[in-house]
Amino acid sequence: MAAAKPENLSLVVHGPGDLRLENYPIPEPGPNEVLLRMHSVGICGSDVHYWQHGRIGDFIVKKPMVLGHEASGTVVKVGSLVKHLKPGDRVAIEPGALREMDEFCKIGRYNLSPSIFFCATPPDDGNLCRFYKHNADFCYKLPDNVTFEEGALIEPLSVGIHACRRAGITLGNKVFVCGAGPIGLVTLIVAKAMGAAQVVVTDLSATRLSKAKEVGADFVLQISKESPKEIASKVEDLLGCKPEVTIECSGVELSIQAGIYATRSGGTLVLVGLGSEMTTVPLVHAATREVDIKGVFRYCNTSFQFISQLCQKTVASYNGSQNYSSNKDCPDKTQPAQTTQTSFS
Amino acid sequence: MAAAKPENLSLVVHGPGDLRLENYPIPEPGPNEVLLRMHSVGICGSDVHYWQHGRIGDFIVKKPMVLGHEASGTVVKVGSLVKHLKPGDRVAIEPGALREMDEFCKIGRYNLSPSIFFCATPPDDGNLCRFYKHNADFCYKLPDNVTFEEGALIEPLSVGIHACRRAGITLGNKVFVCGAGPIGLVTLIVAKAMGAAQVVVTDLSATRLSKAKEVGADFVLQISKESPKEIASKVEDLLGCKPEVTIECSGVELSIQAGIYATRSGGTLVLVGLGSEMTTVPLVHAATREVDIKGVFRYCNTSFQFISQLCQKTVASYNGSQNYSSNKDCPDKTQPAQTTQTSFS
Amino acid sequence: MAAAKPENLSLVVHGPGDLRLENYPIPEPGPNEVLLRMHSVGICGSDVHYWQHGRIGDFIVKKPMVLGHEASGTVVKVGSLVKHLKPGDRVAIEPGALREMDEFCKIGRYNLSPSIFFCATPPDDGNLCRFYKHNADFCYKLPDNVTFEEGALIEPLSVGIHACRRAGITLGNKVFVCGAGPIGLVTLIVAKAMGAAQVVVTDLSATRLSKAKEVGADFVLQISKESPKEIASKVEDLLGCKPEVTIECSGVELSIQAGIYATRSGGTLVLVGLGSEMTTVPLVHAATREVDIKGVFRYCNTSFQFISQLCQKTVASYNGSQNYSSNKDCPDKTQPAQTTQTSFS
Amino acid sequence: MAAAKPENLSLVVHGPGDLRLENYPIPEPGPNEVLLRMHSVGICGSDVHYWQHGRIGDFIVKKPMVLGHEASGTVVKVGSLVKHLKPGDRVAIEPGALREMDEFCKIGRYNLSPSIFFCATPPDDGNLCRFYKHNADFCYKLPDNVTFEEGALIEPLSVGIHACRRAGITLGNKVFVCGAGPIGLVTLIVAKAMGAAQVVVTDLSATRLSKAKEVGADFVLQISKESPKEIASKVEDLLGCKPEVTIECSGVELSIQAGIYATRSGGTLVLVGLGSEMTTVPLVHAATREVDIKGVFRYCNTSFQFISQLCQKTVASYNGSQNYSSNKDCPDKTQPAQTTQTSFS
Repeated sequence: MAAAKPENLSLVVHGPGDLRLENYPIPEPGPNEVLLRMHSVGICGSDVHYWQHGRIGDFIVKKPMVLGHEASGTVVKVGSLVKHLKPGDRVAIEPGALREMDEFCKIGRYNLSPSIFFCATPPDDGNLCRFYKHNADFCYKLPDNVTFEEGALIEPLSVGIHACRRAGITLGNKVFVCGAGPIGLVTLIVAKAMGAAQVVVTDLSATRLSKAKEVGADFVLQISKESPKEIASKVEDLLGCKPEVTIECSGVELSIQAGIYATRSGGTLVLVGLGSEMTTVPLVHAATREVDIKGVFRYCNTSFQFISQLCQKTVASYNGSQNYSSNKDCPDKTQPAQTTQTSFS
Repeated sequence: MAAAKPENLSLVVHGPGDLRLENYPIPEPGPNEVLLRMHSVGICGSDVHYWQHGRIGDFIVKKPMVLGHEASGTVVKVGSLVKHLKPGDRVAIEPGALREMDEFCKIGRYNLSPSIFFCATPPDDGNLCRFYKHNADFCYKLPDNVTFEEGALIEPLSVGIHACRRAGITLGNKVFVCGAGPIGLVTLIVAKAMGAAQVVVTDLSATRLSKAKEVGADFVLQISKESPKEIASKVEDLLGCKPEVTIECSGVELSIQAGIYATRSGGTLVLVGLGSEMTTVPLVHAATREVDIKGVFRYCNTSFQFISQLCQKTVASYNGSQNYSSNKDCPDKTQPAQTTQTSFS
Repeated sequence: MAAAKPENLSLVVHGPGDLRLENYPIPEPGPNEVLLRMHSVGICGSDVHYWQHGRIGDFIVKKPMVLGHEASGTVVKVGSLVKHLKPGDRVAIEPGALREMDEFCKIGRYNLSPSIFFCATPPDDGNLCRFYKHNADFCYKLPDNVTFEEGALIEPLSVGIHACRRAGITLGNKVFVCGAGPIGLVTLIVAKAMGAAQVVVTDLSATRLSKAKEVGADFVLQISKESPKEIASKVEDLLGCKPEVTIECSGVELSIQAGIYATRSGGTLVLVGLGSEMTTVPLVHAATREVDIKGVFRYCNTSFQFISQLCQKTVASYNGSQNYSSNKDCPDKTQPAQTTQTSFS
Repeated sequence: MAAAKPENLSLVVHGPGDLRLENYPIPEPGPNEVLLRMHSVGICGSDVHYWQHGRIGDFIVKKPMVLGHEASGTVVKVGSLVKHLKPGDRVAIEPGALREMDEFCKIGRYNLSPSIFFCATPPDDGNLCRFYKHNADFCYKLPDNVTFEEGALIEPLSVGIHACRRAGITLGNKVFVCGAGPIGLVTLIVAKAMGAAQVVVTDLSATRLSKAKEVGADFVLQISKESPKEIASKVEDLLGCKPEVTIECSGVELSIQAGIYATRSGGTLVLVGLGSEMTTVPLVHAATREVDIKGVFRYCNTSFQFISQLCQKTVASYNGSQNYSSNKDCPDKTQPAQTTQTSFS
C-alpha cells in the first residue's frame, strides 16, 4: 500500500451475487460523529443474504452498499461537538442511530423510528471496511476487560437482550427457546443471566443443540416430525410445567404454533424469527389463555451490555458456528448460521 | 302457590333448545357464602347460545344448568364467616369466584385459574333464578346511587374494563374499536373514561354505529367490502394517525387482520371477540412493528367499577339492544346482540 | 419606533427585583429550529420568583434572562432540516428541548437529562418576547379547535399529566390532591380525565377550594389546624376508603406526612410541590405498607395533550387566579397563584 | 418418651426473656391444611427479638407464642380438600397464609392483607416445634435436589427476591446494597441472579463485608464516619457511575440519606431495613431526580424460588453468621445477625 494514499478497503454488495472489495474514501466525521478505524466485524446472516439475494423482504439493494453491522473499532477522530469520546478509545458500535427526534425516540423506543439509520440495511452503508464514521451517541466505550471480538458481538447479544426484556423474563422463570441458531443461543444466554430457572431449547439439528447445552441450556429437545401440540407437551414434560415465556427464533409456522400451545396461561410468546407474510396460528388458544404475542424489531437501550461474562459467552456460542455447513436442516430462516468474524487491519 | 312452600323459580337449560322454568330448592349458604334474592339479571348472548346450541366450544351442557351471570340482588342470609355483608345489602355479583388459591390467584390474575367457578358456564349454575347463593368475597355492595339494573350491567362493563386495561389505554390515546355490539360499546365507554382522546368504531350495521355515536364514539365507520388494509387506511385517515390501541370485538378474521395493519408501531391489539380455532394473520407485520397481540379471558379486579356515570352509560348502551332482531348482519359472533334484562320478583 | 428596525421586545430579568423590557435582536433559527412569533405566554410562579428573588434554589440568574415558558405562537421561519412545520403553523412550545442524546433520552425520560435546555431556567432564555427560536422537535402544531391561550396552558397541564402518570392513576381510583393552586387544579382535571372515580382536594383557602369544586373535585376539605393523621382520617371518611393515590402539590412537610398516612397500602404518593432540603416524614409507615413515594421533575412525553376539553378546563381553572392577591394563606410554596397570561402582539 | 403420649415439643415465648420448651398437643389439620413434621427451622433475628423484648413495634406478645418462621418439614397428614400434597412430601413453608380473599389478595399483593396469618408474629404461632399444621396452599413441595436446610432458608431468600423485584432490577444494572447482614446478603445474591452487572455492598463490619465478597459482591466498602454524601460519592467512584438501584437493609437514617444521594436519576431506592418512626431525609433531592422510594413488607409470590443454586448460596451466606457475637457494630437494626438453624427430630 502506497504511503501517500490513505486506503479504506470496503466490502461492497452491488446486487445479487455481486460482491466487491473496493477502496472507498475515508469519510470525514460531522460535528456529532466519530471516525473509527474498524477492528472486528461479524458477518451476520443478513449480510450473506444481501450478498446472495440482493434483498431481504422490502429492503432492496438498489445502489452499492457496504456490508457489516456487528462491529467494534477505535476512535481516530472526533467531531466538534463530541465530548464523551476521544481518539484512541475502543468502542462497540450500535448500528442503529437516530436521524430524527420523533415520537418513538421521545418515548424510548427509538428502534421503531421509521427514519433511523441502520448499518448495512439499504440504503445505509455498513462498517465492514477499514474506516467508518458513526453517530458518536451510538458508540460505546469498551471496558478494558472486553475484547474487540466481544465488543463486536454485543450487537447480536442485543437481539437476545431485547427479546428477553420484551418477554419480561424474571427470576425463576421457565423458558422455552425455539431454535438453537446464533440468535437462539444468545437468547438462551441472556435468559439465564436474567434469572431464568430452567431453559429448554429445541432445534432440528443435534449439533446446534449440543452447542446450546454447552452454553447453558438445562434441557434440549431435538425436533423431527412432532406436531405443534406434541412439541408443547414434551416441553411441559421436561420443565415439569408450562413455561411462562417462549421465545421463537426460527420463524417457522409450526414452531410458532407450538409456542402458543406451550406457553403457560398469562405468559408471553416473543417472536424473533420471521417467516412468511401470512401465518396461520391458533390465535383463540393464545387469546383465551391471555398468552401475549410480541415481536421484536432489532433492539434499543441495550447499551448497558458490557457484562464481561455475557460477552465472553456470546463469543463462545459463536465459535464453531462455521461448522454449520448449511441451513438445509435449520428451522431458523432469518438467522442463518454462517455468522463469523473478520479482523480488519 | 302454597304459602308453606318456598319457591325458587329458575331458568334451566337441559340441552339444545330445551329451556325450562323449574322450581329449585332454595340453597343454604356455606360459611363464606351469602344467599341472595335476585333482582336484575341480564341475558347475555352466551345464555342464548347455550339455550339454542347446548354448548359454546368445549363448554357443553351435560346436565341441567341454570342460566344467567349478569346479575344483582339483595342479601337475605349470610354464612358464619361473612363479615362485610349483611341481610338487606344490595349487591352486584362477580360471576367468577375462586375455588382454589392457585398460582394464578396468588399473582392477581384469578380469571386464569382453571378451577374457577363461573355462573352459567357448564357445569356451574347461573343466577337467573329467585334465590342464589354465592361466594361472599365476590359480591360487592352497591352504592345508593347505583340501581339494580346498573349493578347487573357491571358484569359486561367489566369485560370492557379488562380489555382496555390489557390494552394499556391511557390519557390522549387514539383507539380503534372493531365491532359495535354490546361489548364494543362498553369498550368504547371505558376507553373514553380512561382518557382516550379519540375513538373510532367500525361495524357492518349502521344501526349499531348510530348507538356507538350516541354513547361517545368520536368517529364511526361502516364496513362493507373493504379489505383489511383499506379499513386500516380509513381508520388512520379519520384519526389523523394510526391508533396506539385497537380492540377487536368481532372475532372475524378480516377484522383481526385490519387490527394488525391499523395499529401504530409499538401499540397493542387486544382480541376480545373470538373466531375459529385457527386464524390466518399478517403476524410478521405485527412482530416487526412491535404491535403486541393480547387476548382477554373474562376479567379480574374490576370491582372498583362503581362509577355511577359509567354504569348509567352502560345501561344506556344496552337499551335498544332488543331492536337488533338478528345477528345476520353482525360481525360480532361471540357477542350476540340479544342481551336484555329481566327483573325477577 | 422606526418601521425599518425589526423589534423583539422581551421581558428580561437582570437580578432580584430588576425586570426590564428590552429590545432583543430577532434570532435566526438553526437547521433544526423554527422562528416563532409569540402569541400567548403564561406567567408562572417561577417567573415571578426569578424576578423577585433572582433565583430558585440552585438556579441563579447570573446574566440577563428572558422570562416565560408557558407559551404558544406562530411559525414564521423554519430551519433547513425542519420537515413537519411550515410558516403559518400555530404551535405550542415544549420548553424543555434536548441538547444531547444521553442515556435518559434514549430510555424516554428526557426530562432527567442534565444538559436539557429549558426556557427561563438560568441560563436559558424564555419566550416572553415577540420573536423566539426553538428546537422544532419540541413545537407541536395546534389543532384548529385549540386556541393560542389553551395552547400556552398545555405546559402547566403537562405537569399534571406527568404527575398523574407517575402515580399510575387508572379507572376507578380514589385520589387525594393536596393543594388547590394552579398545579393542584390541573392535577385534579387530569386525574378525572384518566378515570379517577373520586377526587378529594385540600387547601387552606376556601376560595381556592371553590375553584377546585368548580373544575371537578368530588370533595373538598379546608385545612386549618388538623394534624397529618387527622387530615388522613378526614380524607378516608370523605372517600369511604383510603385513596390509592395521593398527589402532593404544596411541598409543606405536614402535608407530605398527611399524604403518607392517607394513602392506601400498596398505593402511591407523588410529590409535586417542593419544600425545604431536608424533610421529616414517617418513612416506616410508608415502607411497611408499600406506599411508593415518587417525585416529578417537569414532565416528558405529554405531547399528546391536545385534548380540546382538557385544554379548555385548564383555561377555566386559570381564569380567576388573579383574584388570589397573595400567597400568605397558601400552602403551595412552589406554585404561587399569580399565574396569568399575556398576549404579545 | 411414653408410647401412649404423642409429643410436640415447642419453643414458646411467654414474655420478655421468658422462653420455654413445652409439650403442645399435635394439631389436627383442617380441610385445606396439612400437618407437618418439622425438620429445619431457622432462628431469625425477629425470633430472638420477641424472646428478649416480648415485642417488635406494635406487635406485642400478649399470650404464649411458638417461635419460628423459616422452616421446612414433611407432610404427615392432609386435610380433606388438599389435592397437591400427600404424606411424605417434603415442603418449604411460606409463613404468611391468607385468611381472607380481600382486595389485596385479589390483585396479587397478599402480603399487604391486614388479616393475613403469619408464623411467629403475635398472636400467630410459629413452627419451631415438632408438629405444625399450615394452610396447604402455602406449602411448596421441595425438588429432590433441594435439602431441608435450603428449603428453610427460602424464607429469608424471599425477602431479597421481593426487594429486588420491587426495585425492578434487570440485566446490566449497577446496584448498591447498604448492609451486609443476612438480608443484605440474600439481596446481593438475588440481585446478581437477576442480572445485575455490578453490586457494591457497604457495612460497618469488615467481617460481614468479607462474607459479602465471598457470596458475590463486586465491590465492598467499609463505612466508618463518612457523611451520606461522601458514601454516595464513594459508591459512584467504585461503580463508575451512580447505581440505578439502591437497596437499604440497615434502617439507619444516615444510610437512607446516602441511598437517596447515591441513586441515579430515575432510579429506585428500596427500603428493607426499618428505623425509627420519623425519618429526616433529603426528599427534594429524590423527588426532583425522580428517584422512587419504595418499601417492602415481607414478600409475596416468591414461591418460584426453587432454584437450587440460589438456595445453596443462601445457605452459604448464612453459615458463619453465628460468628457475629453481637449487633453493636451492626447498622442493621431490624435484621440481627444471630440467625442460625436448628434441626428438630
